This record gives sequence, structure tokens and C-alpha cells, in this order.
Amino acid sequence: MSRPPRHFDREEREVEFSRALAFSDGVFGVAITLLITTIDVPHVEGPDLGSKLTDALKELDGNILSYFISFAVVGLMWMHHHRLFSRVRRIDSAALWLNLLSLSFIVLMPFTTELMGDYGDEPIAISLYALNIALAVAAYTLLWWYCAARDMLAEHLTRAQIRYELATRLFISAGFLISIPIAYANARLAQWSWLAFGIAQGWISAWLERTGRAPSGDG
Amino acid sequence: MSRPPRHFDREEREVEFSRALAFSDGVFGVAITLLITTIDVPHVEGPDLGSKLTDALKELDGNILSYFISFAVVGLMWMHHHRLFSRVRRIDSAALWLNLLSLSFIVLMPFTTELMGDYGDEPIAISLYALNIALAVAAYTLLWWYCAARDMLAEHLTRAQIRYELATRLFISAGFLISIPIAYANARLAQWSWLAFGIAQGWISAWLERTGRAPSGDG
Amino acid sequence: MSRPPRHFDREEREVEFSRALAFSDGVFGVAITLLITTIDVPHVEGPDLGSKLTDALKELDGNILSYFISFAVVGLMWMHHHRLFSRVRRIDSAALWLNLLSLSFIVLMPFTTELMGDYGDEPIAISLYALNIALAVAAYTLLWWYCAARDMLAEHLTRAQIRYELATRLFISAGFLISIPIAYANARLAQWSWLAFGIAQGWISAWLERTGRAPSGDG
Amino acid sequence: MSRPPRHFDREEREVEFSRALAFSDGVFGVAITLLITTIDVPHVEGPDLGSKLTDALKELDGNILSYFISFAVVGLMWMHHHRLFSRVRRIDSAALWLNLLSLSFIVLMPFTTELMGDYGDEPIAISLYALNIALAVAAYTLLWWYCAARDMLAEHLTRAQIRYELATRLFISAGFLISIPIAYANARLAQWSWLAFGIAQGWISAWLERTGRAPSGDG
Repeated sequence: MSRPPRHFDREEREVEFSRALAFSDGVFGVAITLLITTIDVPHVEGPDLGSKLTDALKELDGNILSYFISFAVVGLMWMHHHRLFSRVRRIDSAALWLNLLSLSFIVLMPFTTELMGDYGDEPIAISLYALNIALAVAAYTLLWWYCAARDMLAEHLTRAQIRYELATRLFISAGFLISIPIAYANARLAQWSWLAFGIAQGWISAWLERTGRAPSGDG
Repeated sequence: MSRPPRHFDREEREVEFSRALAFSDGVFGVAITLLITTIDVPHVEGPDLGSKLTDALKELDGNILSYFISFAVVGLMWMHHHRLFSRVRRIDSAALWLNLLSLSFIVLMPFTTELMGDYGDEPIAISLYALNIALAVAAYTLLWWYCAARDMLAEHLTRAQIRYELATRLFISAGFLISIPIAYANARLAQWSWLAFGIAQGWISAWLERTGRAPSGDG
Repeated sequence: MSRPPRHFDREEREVEFSRALAFSDGVFGVAITLLITTIDVPHVEGPDLGSKLTDALKELDGNILSYFISFAVVGLMWMHHHRLFSRVRRIDSAALWLNLLSLSFIVLMPFTTELMGDYGDEPIAISLYALNIALAVAAYTLLWWYCAARDMLAEHLTRAQIRYELATRLFISAGFLISIPIAYANARLAQWSWLAFGIAQGWISAWLERTGRAPSGDG
Repeated sequence: MSRPPRHFDREEREVEFSRALAFSDGVFGVAITLLITTIDVPHVEGPDLGSKLTDALKELDGNILSYFISFAVVGLMWMHHHRLFSRVRRIDSAALWLNLLSLSFIVLMPFTTELMGDYGDEPIAISLYALNIALAVAAYTLLWWYCAARDMLAEHLTRAQIRYELATRLFISAGFLISIPIAYANARLAQWSWLAFGIAQGWISAWLERTGRAPSGDG
């Protein structure tokens, strides 16, 4: 408290994080529901309406696949966000801003989801989707690191634990960034690489924990 | 606890389900409100605006009917979801994923509602709407069964009670699936069959409970 | 409890109304925010962009006015809903359905608001807007009456108090219904009549309370 | 309590402000998430799809910039709103209406954000965006002043403190109003002036607090 406090600092330190959490939960809930706006009801008319409509609906396959992928991604991010905040003891102005930053990338998801749904074969669409997720994970990791480094979490983490958690999270973010050049070679391959990265990360984590190489702790 | 825990398992077991419930309530609330986007204000211009507008509004009858049907359906599903979670004592990672799965079908409702509203005479539109509800009910039933089987509910259910509840819920899901071939014979009849199934299910349940054939319990 | 309970009855009686209230608050919050979708950004292009844009924005005056009217209406209904539920002690299945019914008319507001905003001179647009509010108030009144008649409120109301409250609420609903024929004579006059009814209702209530003619009580 | 109470007054004074806060948080959360609707996925087709799509996406730069500016603005307003309400002890009907008024300007943000995103070089678009923020800040300041003047806050504020806080808030509002004539000289300069005003306000506040010229207190 010796340095002069920033403008919002003094008061917001007292803001119960439960409120920030409720706001974040609301944003996650609305963002995940707005994903439905990425699937548009087709407009067909004239004779032979039934078969035209069926054909138009079949062309929505990319949008429907993108919808479910994004639903799982945003749902997974919500679980992580949720878990982080359930262990946060206090919060300050900088953490609120980092939280807003990570939410701003979550809220972008309906846009990049629709982009990928509409133009699933275009590398630029795949790349922007991957970039969106990479930035969301990176912003969330920054928030996590800030809370951990400032000892705002309920349990104290050792430096080794923090390094391990950071590495785990940045591995995911890096995986999505690496998929961008892959998309320019083969759009479909880039999408499969996301699944591969996710599974690899799960296996590596499980292996490290099983072999006792992961720093133990509640983190 | 002898098998190695899955990646999220350890921590999420501690996540208070109240948070998951708040998130779910939010998603239900937004999804039910987004149903209004299925009714578009018509665009008419030129002379004789009043009668053109009145005609265009009359053509919205299918959309308005679909809106109220879906409002009741999503509202009913919220009540069931709500009731399930009010009896859940603890939650784990798999239950959170099953919950996300069932929410993903709820969030699809504005799409299938608009589809049925715009193309109420087309079997494909009716079928996809019925399929959406069948999948939502099935996913919810899976979530319910998982919680009941793992003894996560506040009260212990006997196997007979679990079987009875499963049968009740799957009866609804099956009813909507059966309406799909009906829709290809007669679209209107398929819609009436939903009402018939709902009423039948209510009567059968009431009859089983009155005659003591339903396994007693709080479930 | 002598009559056989309806299907959901038994359990839902135990559902804490706080959850139903949180769901309702969410629906109100989303519905009032979706009102912004009734004002569309105009699309203009070509030379002289600035003055074309200014002209197009001036034509939005009806939409902006409708937006603020509906914001006040939905806000006022939320306050009433809020006040009712803050006094409810318990809730049952029928009350939950009546609550859903009144929410379904609240959620319709963005549609009728956009209709009135786009076609402010057409009697049919004004009429449907008035009908929407009349139905929302009527459904809410039914919910209130049900809770009051079944003695679900925190304080016991006398029959005279219930009659007085019903009359007050139905006066508003009737006012909006009466404005429908007025709209066919003069659209603008119908809109002013809403304000007049609102003010009249406020004056009459205040006068009845001041002169001791209103049944006393906390209701 | 000697003057006759206004129509809602008596009861609403008892309404726990926590509910009003939950409603407001919900509106903020939905409004900030609806900002994503201001970025539309471009529609291109035909040969050379990839480069057409890339070009169309580059033209979204104004929309994406506007999105992040508005996300920060609405987020900042939420933090202020949040901080105000965390210190409010009681609330009355007038405060609820002032709260609704300030929310009605927050909810307008997706409209003015899209306007600025689509027509970033037009003075009218910049001006309406600035006007929206100025009105939102002014309405919020009015709400704050009402609560402070009626001694509804947890801590008692001296007149000097109230004056100081009012001046700080109105400085921001005035800054946005002053940017309107600037926009007619140079649209880009007006946008930079917002940043300059924000930084200036931060510096002045910090300087006043450091030099002891700001009235001390928790406000």
C-alpha cells in the first residue's frame, strides 16, 4: 500500500469477487446461447419447396458442426473460468480488467464460429477461429498467472506449480497458433489438429501426474 | 477412487453445483427469450400500406404458434432441469459435460422453432423440430440417469424407481421420434400427436401413481 | 391435499421460488436488452454519404421513441413482478405456468416494439402493441390473483383488498384494450391515451388511498 | 413520511436492492455480449473466394475496433455501477427509475457501436456514439447524486466529497460532448480525444489525491 493506488484500485479491492463472477457467468451464458445465431434458417420458395428446403438444410452441415464445436469450447472455457474463480480469495482492478479482456475474446466466438461455419474450406476462416481461441486462452492464462503470482488464490502455489500450470495452458494456446499455418496447407487437417492437440495435452498431463513429475498441490 | 482421475475430475468434484445451476438457468433464460427472434417484422412498402401489412402479419400465424409451443416446451424443460438440480447433492466432470450436452440442444430450439414457423407444412421442418426435442429430452434423461445411478441425488432411489423414471422420460423422447414418420404422412397430424403424447404421458403417470403401480418415493 | 395432485405438483411445491425468480429476472433482463434489436443501423452508400446517413437516421425517430417507451413498460412490469415475488411465500406448479405465460408476453415485446417503430402510423401496428401489453398485464394479474387467492403471499389479504388490487390492475389492461379502437380513428391519439390512462390510474389510486377508500394493508 | 407517498413508493422502499442489482448485472451482461452482433460475417461468393473473403474481412477493421472500444466502455461502466451499488444501503422508487434510465443508454450501445463501426469516417456516427456515452454517464451520475444526497450510501459523504465526485463524473460526460464539434472538424481526432480525456481525468484525479486536494473519504 506504499505506492500511490491507481484510480479504481482502492475501492475495487473490496468488491466481492462473487459479483464479478456472476457478471462473467452471465456473459458466458449469453455468449454460448448466441452461438445459435450462427445457424440461419434458409430462405427458399417456389414449387418443389420440400426438396429445395432439404437441400438448403444439408448445406448447413458446416454451421451445425461449428456450432457444436464452439459450444464445447465455450463450455470448457467456462468450466476453467469457473474453477479459477472458485479458488480466488480477493480481486483487484487489474484482475477485473484481465477478466474483461478474456471475456471480450469469448464474446467474439459467435462471429468466428459463423465465419468458420459459412466458409469452412477457407484457410482465413479457420485461422481466425484458431486465433480467437488462442487469444482467449492466452488472456485467461494471463488472468490466472496474475492471480497466482499475487497470491490471490485460496491456496499458496509454489513457483514450480505455477510454471507447470502456465506451461499446460500455453501448450493449448500454442497448439491453436500452430494450426494456422496448417490451415493454409489443408483446412480440414487444421481442424483435426485441434482435436489431436487437446487429446495430447490430456495424455501428457495425465502421464506427468501419474509418474509424479507434475508438482503436486491442489492447483 | 482407485482408477486414475480424468483431467478435470479432481477439482470439479468440488465445484459447487449451485454455480453450474446458475449458468444453466442463464442459458435457459436467454434461449427462451431468443425465441422472439423467430418472428420477424414484415417489410412492406408502397401504397395501401395498411392492408399489405395486415396481410403480411396474418402470414406470421405459423411463427406465432411455433413461438408459444416452444416457449412452453423450453419452460417445461427448465422446470424439469430445475427440479433435478434442486435434488443433486454433488456433481462431477461427466455430469457437467452431460449438462452442457443437454443445454446445447435447448439452445438449438430457436433455430428449429423458426424453421417450423417458416415452413410449417414441410415434413422436414416438423421432423427436425421433433428430433431436436427428442434429443434434448434424451440428453437430459442421460444426465438424470447418471446422477441417479451414481447416487448423487439427495435421496437414494431404488432400482425400480430409477427404471420407472427412465421409462417415463424415454416415453416422451420416443413419442417425438415416432412423430417423424407421421410428419411425412401428414404434417399437421404430427403436431397434434405431440399434444396427444404429452396428455397420454400425464394420464399414464397419474394412473400408475393412483393405482400404486408407480414405485413410491420422492423421485 | 385431498384431490389427486397434478403431475408436477408434489415436487414443485418444494421448489424454492427464489430460483423461479432468478429465471424470471433473467428473462426480463434479456427481453429488455433485446429491445435494442428493434433499431437497425441504416445501410446507405454512394456519394454524399454523410447527408444520406443523417436522413436515414432521422427516419429512425419512431424506432427510438418506441424503444424508450418499451424500455419503460418492461422496466415497470419488472418492478411489479419483482414486488409480487418478494412477497410470495411458496409457489406451486400452476403459479409457475402462469408465470411462464406472463413472461411469454413480455418476451413478445421486442417484436411488437419493432412493429410499432417501423409502422408507427398504421392502426394495426399500434393495436398489436396495445394488445401485447394488455395481455401481459392480464396474465400477470391472473398470476397475482392466483397467489393471493391461494394465500401464498407473506401477508393475508382480505377479499376487499384483493378486489381493489384486481380492479387497479385490470383498469390498466382495459385501458390498453380501449386504445385499440382509438388507434383506428387516430394512431397518434391512441399512443397519447396510454399516457393518459397511466396518469389517471396513478391519480385515482392516490386519491383512493388519501381519502381512505382504498382497503388498507400492505398489499 | 408525512407527505403522501407516490404510487410505488411505499412498497418499493422495502425491495432489497440486491434484486435490482442482479437485474442490472444481467442487463449489463447481455448488452456487452450483444456487442458481437455489430460485427457481421461478410457474404461473398463466386470464384476467388479466399481473396474476396480476406478483403471483406479487412473492411471489418472499423467494426472490430469499435467492438473493443465499446467492450471496454461498457465494462468500465459496469465496474462503476457495481461499485456504486455495493455501497448502497437502501433504494427507493426514484432510484430504480434512474437506474432504468441509465441502463436504457447502456443498452443503446450496440446500436451506436455498429453505427460507428459501419460509418467510422462520418461525423454524425461519431457524434451519436459520443452522445450515447455522455448521456449514459450523465444518467449514472444523476443516480449516484440522488443516492448520495438522500444519504442512501453505506458511508455518509460530506458536501465537499459529493461535489468532488460529481465534478469528476461530469468531466467525463462533458469530454464526450466536447468531442462532438471536434468530430465535424476531424472524425479521427474526435476518437483520439476520448482517450486523451480519459487519461487526463485519471491524471487529474491522481494528482488531486496525491496533493491532498481531493476530499478524503471512502467515496
